[in-house]
Amino acid sequence: MSFTEMAPGVAAQAPSATEGFRLNHSMLRVKHPETSLAFYSTVFGMRLLRQLDFPELQFTLYFLGHLAEDSQVPDDAAARTTWTFSQTGLLELTHNWGSENDPELHYHNGNDAPQGFGHLCMSVPDLDRAVAWFDANSVDFVKRPNDGRMKDVAFVKDPDGYWIEVVEPARLSHLGQA
Amino acid sequence: MSFTEMAPGVAAQAPSATEGFRLNHSMLRVKHPETSLAFYSTVFGMRLLRQLDFPELQFTLYFLGHLAEDSQVPDDAAARTTWTFSQTGLLELTHNWGSENDPELHYHNGNDAPQGFGHLCMSVPDLDRAVAWFDANSVDFVKRPNDGRMKDVAFVKDPDGYWIEVVEPARLSHLGQA
Repeated sequence: MSFTEMAPGVAAQAPSATEGFRLNHSMLRVKHPETSLAFYSTVFGMRLLRQLDFPELQFTLYFLGHLAEDSQVPDDAAARTTWTFSQTGLLELTHNWGSENDPELHYHNGNDAPQGFGHLCMSVPDLDRAVAWFDANSVDFVKRPNDGRMKDVAFVKDPDGYWIEVVEPARLSHLGQA
Repeated sequence: MSFTEMAPGVAAQAPSATEGFRLNHSMLRVKHPETSLAFYSTVFGMRLLRQLDFPELQFTLYFLGHLAEDSQVPDDAAARTTWTFSQTGLLELTHNWGSENDPELHYHNGNDAPQGFGHLCMSVPDLDRAVAWFDANSVDFVKRPNDGRMKDVAFVKDPDGYWIEVVEPARLSHLGQA
């Protein structure tokens, strides 16, 4: 499957050296892992696929994802680590031990200055039902679907203040149309 | 498929209200879109699935991803927008028009202070071959696989200085084992 839209800079074909490459995860640092795990597993229905503890480095990594219906998650922990790194579309949360006890520590969301990373985006089958679910769970909104100029797109905040865009794909077909 | 590892905070089951939720993309701002598109499409083999221009807001969004063998990408642009937002594991690059002409502008990678976002991670079938490919393309390394305490894990920089972890899943089964 060699589809690509063309724009300046885009390679016409994926080089053969990149065959099998995939985007496994994005990593965000979190201050309170219990709070973040509750948020992503409850509000967004993500499963904890693998927790990796590094006592010598004083941090823990949590890999979260949405499982496909036919996913076969290995029982064996080592096999599950390999399996986790073979998936796509995961979220890695990094907990530096003790961060939750540091009153000065607040992670940077990338939208306040200095800017860089912008957001995660979750797609949902029904945006209105998702918004009701977020309200039922007292989730903080950056922007509700009808706010601002970009209609049909919501933004909420995770417990550290990172932004999560929420979209219903069928309602976005008009985007970017002249 | 209801698998989860358990840790404090993790919901035992994904709530039914979250059925069909998926992590569609992570968004990074980029200064030079042509440079970034060349990098991600050549070095990492990503395809440009959809470009969305917003003249009234003075920005363009580029959605990149690795396509599955059986992906059926719609020809129609509006249908392709909906299809793009239905995928998982994508990268969205945001170009604020004119950023490339601002000598003062440098996006923040989240690893220098103030910290937040850490990195993207790409999984590859063969880490040694990937490293050779990166060298052939003059990619900057943050860490080669044998540097530091975390062996078998590489980190490279994208054109804006964002970090990209690169792993070969089969070589990581030992991670986090006591």
